[in-house]
Amino acid sequence: MALVGGGQGSFIGRVHSIAACLDNRAVLTAGALSSNPERAKSSAPDYGIEDARAYTSYQELLESEAKLPEDERIDFLSIATPNHVHFEVADAAVKAGFNVVCDKPMTYDLAQAEKLMQTVRDSDVVFALSHNYTGYPLVRQAREMILGGDLGEINAIRAQYIQGWLRTSLEAEEQKQASWRTDPSKSGAAGAFGDIATHAYNLGRFMTGLLPDQVSCHLKTFVEGRRLDDYGTAVVRYDNGGLGTVTASQISHGRENDLEIEIDGTKGSLKWRQENPNELIYRQNGKAHQIYTRDPNAPFMTPLGAAACRIPAGHPEAFFEAFANLYGSAFDDMAKRASGESFERRDTVYTNVFDGVEGMYFIQQCVASSQDNAAWLPLKHDAARR
Amino acid sequence: MALVGGGQGSFIGRVHSIAACLDNRAVLTAGALSSNPERAKSSAPDYGIEDARAYTSYQELLESEAKLPEDERIDFLSIATPNHVHFEVADAAVKAGFNVVCDKPMTYDLAQAEKLMQTVRDSDVVFALSHNYTGYPLVRQAREMILGGDLGEINAIRAQYIQGWLRTSLEAEEQKQASWRTDPSKSGAAGAFGDIATHAYNLGRFMTGLLPDQVSCHLKTFVEGRRLDDYGTAVVRYDNGGLGTVTASQISHGRENDLEIEIDGTKGSLKWRQENPNELIYRQNGKAHQIYTRDPNAPFMTPLGAAACRIPAGHPEAFFEAFANLYGSAFDDMAKRASGESFERRDTVYTNVFDGVEGMYFIQQCVASSQDNAAWLPLKHDAARR
Amino acid sequence: MALVGGGQGSFIGRVHSIAACLDNRAVLTAGALSSNPERAKSSAPDYGIEDARAYTSYQELLESEAKLPEDERIDFLSIATPNHVHFEVADAAVKAGFNVVCDKPMTYDLAQAEKLMQTVRDSDVVFALSHNYTGYPLVRQAREMILGGDLGEINAIRAQYIQGWLRTSLEAEEQKQASWRTDPSKSGAAGAFGDIATHAYNLGRFMTGLLPDQVSCHLKTFVEGRRLDDYGTAVVRYDNGGLGTVTASQISHGRENDLEIEIDGTKGSLKWRQENPNELIYRQNGKAHQIYTRDPNAPFMTPLGAAACRIPAGHPEAFFEAFANLYGSAFDDMAKRASGESFERRDTVYTNVFDGVEGMYFIQQCVASSQDNAAWLPLKHDAARR
Amino acid sequence: MALVGGGQGSFIGRVHSIAACLDNRAVLTAGALSSNPERAKSSAPDYGIEDARAYTSYQELLESEAKLPEDERIDFLSIATPNHVHFEVADAAVKAGFNVVCDKPMTYDLAQAEKLMQTVRDSDVVFALSHNYTGYPLVRQAREMILGGDLGEINAIRAQYIQGWLRTSLEAEEQKQASWRTDPSKSGAAGAFGDIATHAYNLGRFMTGLLPDQVSCHLKTFVEGRRLDDYGTAVVRYDNGGLGTVTASQISHGRENDLEIEIDGTKGSLKWRQENPNELIYRQNGKAHQIYTRDPNAPFMTPLGAAACRIPAGHPEAFFEAFANLYGSAFDDMAKRASGESFERRDTVYTNVFDGVEGMYFIQQCVASSQDNAAWLPLKHDAARR
Repeated sequence: MALVGGGQGSFIGRVHSIAACLDNRAVLTAGALSSNPERAKSSAPDYGIEDARAYTSYQELLESEAKLPEDERIDFLSIATPNHVHFEVADAAVKAGFNVVCDKPMTYDLAQAEKLMQTVRDSDVVFALSHNYTGYPLVRQAREMILGGDLGEINAIRAQYIQGWLRTSLEAEEQKQASWRTDPSKSGAAGAFGDIATHAYNLGRFMTGLLPDQVSCHLKTFVEGRRLDDYGTAVVRYDNGGLGTVTASQISHGRENDLEIEIDGTKGSLKWRQENPNELIYRQNGKAHQIYTRDPNAPFMTPLGAAACRIPAGHPEAFFEAFANLYGSAFDDMAKRASGESFERRDTVYTNVFDGVEGMYFIQQCVASSQDNAAWLPLKHDAARR
Repeated sequence: MALVGGGQGSFIGRVHSIAACLDNRAVLTAGALSSNPERAKSSAPDYGIEDARAYTSYQELLESEAKLPEDERIDFLSIATPNHVHFEVADAAVKAGFNVVCDKPMTYDLAQAEKLMQTVRDSDVVFALSHNYTGYPLVRQAREMILGGDLGEINAIRAQYIQGWLRTSLEAEEQKQASWRTDPSKSGAAGAFGDIATHAYNLGRFMTGLLPDQVSCHLKTFVEGRRLDDYGTAVVRYDNGGLGTVTASQISHGRENDLEIEIDGTKGSLKWRQENPNELIYRQNGKAHQIYTRDPNAPFMTPLGAAACRIPAGHPEAFFEAFANLYGSAFDDMAKRASGESFERRDTVYTNVFDGVEGMYFIQQCVASSQDNAAWLPLKHDAARR
Repeated sequence: MALVGGGQGSFIGRVHSIAACLDNRAVLTAGALSSNPERAKSSAPDYGIEDARAYTSYQELLESEAKLPEDERIDFLSIATPNHVHFEVADAAVKAGFNVVCDKPMTYDLAQAEKLMQTVRDSDVVFALSHNYTGYPLVRQAREMILGGDLGEINAIRAQYIQGWLRTSLEAEEQKQASWRTDPSKSGAAGAFGDIATHAYNLGRFMTGLLPDQVSCHLKTFVEGRRLDDYGTAVVRYDNGGLGTVTASQISHGRENDLEIEIDGTKGSLKWRQENPNELIYRQNGKAHQIYTRDPNAPFMTPLGAAACRIPAGHPEAFFEAFANLYGSAFDDMAKRASGESFERRDTVYTNVFDGVEGMYFIQQCVASSQDNAAWLPLKHDAARR
Repeated sequence: MALVGGGQGSFIGRVHSIAACLDNRAVLTAGALSSNPERAKSSAPDYGIEDARAYTSYQELLESEAKLPEDERIDFLSIATPNHVHFEVADAAVKAGFNVVCDKPMTYDLAQAEKLMQTVRDSDVVFALSHNYTGYPLVRQAREMILGGDLGEINAIRAQYIQGWLRTSLEAEEQKQASWRTDPSKSGAAGAFGDIATHAYNLGRFMTGLLPDQVSCHLKTFVEGRRLDDYGTAVVRYDNGGLGTVTASQISHGRENDLEIEIDGTKGSLKWRQENPNELIYRQNGKAHQIYTRDPNAPFMTPLGAAACRIPAGHPEAFFEAFANLYGSAFDDMAKRASGESFERRDTVYTNVFDGVEGMYFIQQCVASSQDNAAWLPLKHDAARR
């Protein structure tokens, strides 16, 4: 495994390395940890990367690794840079034949995303996108329950992702995480909507498989001087007649990472929250509320849900383990590829390049709708999978 | 006290009588409990109303009570009929000089509401509208905190009211509560939005005093054959630049009366839920989350909040007590009127005829917006108070 | 209805009057509101009691009311005085033929309790004891579920009642509630154990019907200068081999009225908390956790549980309504008595004189055990009912 | 790192390997994974241990590793076998100069524990005991708050650990986890009290530093045919006059791993639950309840608390991360030892051999007390640290 990005001050680089290695199926051996060559070198010991494989650019990394014997060379590369760099690294890595795990949003804009999709399609690599919340056992459980019909026809999806850390102008204080996320040249066309609303939207798509039709969106920037949205709400019309809402905030005092989703079907409803991820609430009129806890041994667990658990119920599993599940599913396909087996490229357990295209389309249409007084714009992209 | 409506099968009639009498400040002595004369009579013993004052119509009630000596005559009348009857009863009662406590939505349509507002203005009666959730101690606490500046400038309001009881076509089974609520001739132009979204919207208005500017709304009817909306979402632009969302559902399996509101200000955020009404969560970045419990003796309680409590913290107070607080505040003004004192008619603690006009305007504009592809329509009515 | 005690500064007097009258089945018409004649008079208007029936002593009350014509005379009397006065008032009232609703703990000591039990037995009055938590719909539901076998054989009961209000020496500040409760001459042999542990213990007895065998208790007084216990824990051996624990605290910072109980049976377990009384958690291995909400219309509700509800699920009912349910069940028997019907005197829905004897025995044995280094003492009293 | 125990069917072996390696500070390179030589070999690939270092006994492991060059040889050994094997492995490993991380309870009985303590004292190795719950950030936070005086003098500790998985006789079905835990020859003198009550007791000791004085304990075996306790409660007198309770259950239907602790001090109270580990509730009379969330950047976090976090607030961290924190603190000392620095051996952040002795003493005295009708027995061992 190689890591691109993740140098000092990064939060997500460390997450990728811990998640990828959690189950002892990968070892981090190479990296291009920063676009600053010095920092790229100096950050390497923190990750246990030996100096020889601490490259000063992703180009050098790809080139050098490609020359190594197959059993020494990295199998895949994880991209944890700011958004504007994703495309070039991913595109080059895929073309060089390396499997890729890329942070979301996948690229800087939709055009890049579509190009990358083509590159991936033309290759035989495994490409995973880190919509990491889809790795939670009870999220996978929910998906299987819904696709299996437990909720009946889906009428409504309410998703929100509420944070408060950008309530003040951290970018003015040059805080690293805030700076690039609020900089249109690095983050892309959207702020909160690119960073977190995409997660909320993707979660609804992943859980229900409902195909979108149109979106109307209203973005706001509440912090003075900020150049991107820090709050917004979108209404989504699904093509089965269902209605969705997606709300994202970075300016809600004291709120942390409250990604929450509620789904209403004709036969039942579900609710899940990231901050309390080991519970899934299933409700049906006339019955007691059912709290499904993450329990690998419970008869009510679906196969994917149970397989995503490592330890018994009541011992909480959390963010890293969910992230590791995403990696684990990608590893399964990487192993198939390595052994020459065929593997599903579209309807994968992990979120993939097609989901990435959808995410970029969502961002683009939300921004456009907001600029046009919340006009209804199409939201269904050919890349969309069920 | 007299009760109009509330005959057998009614839920809200009983609530009015218990709430009004809870603090021993009123006695239910007269009623016109049903439009069906027989049922009007037969329902009276359930309420302890003696036969002589169990009238068969509201007209008879008003006429007969007016003739009684002042110290026997009712002081006020509570209206708990289906919506389409509110106006005529309220209008006649006000004109007859009786104080009125009326169920929401206030009338069948906006025109009636505006007429009733004029009638009330021309009179000297106390007129309260039962947006009963505003009677919860911690809701009043929130209002005082926000108007006092604890949250700074308000940026966002997220309100929802989620129910599940109309998931199936109860009206087809002639269930009484469902039948009139889904019948446009009795309920008015909206279903879920008239019955419960108005509460959610009103709660945000009451807590923040933020004035609305525009609304865009999307209503849905998910249950086949239903004639009114049973789900919907509205986006509200406030005139200070703030953004609000109001979502209402009657079709979410297993959900009961989940009225929930979150408010984001520049200095803090608040969250409150009706199903757990004795907690108010106050958050500020960098500080522990503060759980304010309903506690009449706590230094953090505001005057209105503390005054709305009857018993010590930890002994839960709930729906009836909140409803009784609304009555109690109206009684304060009725007492002033009776003793010839002047009293505030616009900025009252209890929701009033002006709030009722606003509520009807909200319903009208939501329905119109929804019919016009969620177009933005004006939402600020002259009646709106801060 | 007459009220004895409840003068200015009382919390529980007001609770009795509101609860008794909540369903319009009683009217408070007489009172001996304080042992101080002046305050007895001056408190009367707060309760709407007319001066003529605002008596200056309970003796005067009993005498005068007895002389009134039957249809004017009170039907029952509620006792809301400090503990040391309960016995004489109750005993005299019963002997005078009045029904009684008495606050717990029933008397000052066990001897008084046993005497009172005899008095009640020799009479035909209805005698209810205000273990008010047994009036919560879901507590009654739990009792019916357990007696009906849903939990199988009961192995363990964990009950606690945690408060914090006596963390400091309020009695030194002459706060009224604190003063008599910490005064052995008024409260009896125990402080926290008499005031609140009795509730926790009674709740387990009420819910399960398990008969006690022995108790070992350890009481503590943590606040300097206090004369009675403010903390303690008791272990109870039940006669079926089950094990119970009862913990009470008045010195836990910030804790309010956290009465909580968990019950383990061979077929299932239950958990209920007073501060969140509209939920009952039912668990069985291998199944989702079941949250029973208070829902009069749900198929899972037992008859007593459903009958104790006034409004639909999701609209919270709370402390007053539970207290009123206790009154309501007593009223049912008072009505039977009035009409000459026979009624159950031992296995009543409301807690009664037998439960009161048990409670006093529990207090006595806990105190004695604690004084004897937590020795095991017998806990089964002949009065105990299943 | 080497792992002893943890062969197929083990839960805790996998936990040790993931936790130890989570931060990329250790690599699992050797193992004696089972006492069954065949299984010891066949389990190795699951852990990525190469065949050459998959030993068939711990003796072979110690001997072979000792012969390896220092930079290839393992630095420490983790013991994840059933309890009866802990002592011989740990004792031999320490004597061979290897650092040890040992599962709790530390040994089969107190005599072994005291011997092992001496062995460790005579050596210079790092010895950590996996009371893993002490690794949760908010548990460390609580310890620092309390030792720093935030709660004042500690009066009471209520700890419980409630499970349900042994509700039925899994041992009769030869389920591996159940079989050895209910077998006195492997588990030791206690069942639930050895397996989980020790955690609850240790947590109180770790958080408060309160020294125990006496214990009275009552153990029960509710499942027929079981040879060890599956339920019990202990009352602990602390030497400052404080009172503690420890309750453990393995027979509570549907309960998972509900380790919960509440601590009352003269200045404040704390509550923490393992199943919701990212919240610590701090309460003080007259103030709002304070919810401390795990937040590395919050001013309210203490140094140890903050240092134990990996990711921002709201992204839950859980069981593995807490376990890894225990390892991490031990690694810090291992690094000091390796570099010849001195390190604290008694008052360590991680639980150590002294805590292990205390735990075994707790078990021994609880069992003895229970056998003697819950008699009070001494609980203060010389090994106890503050």
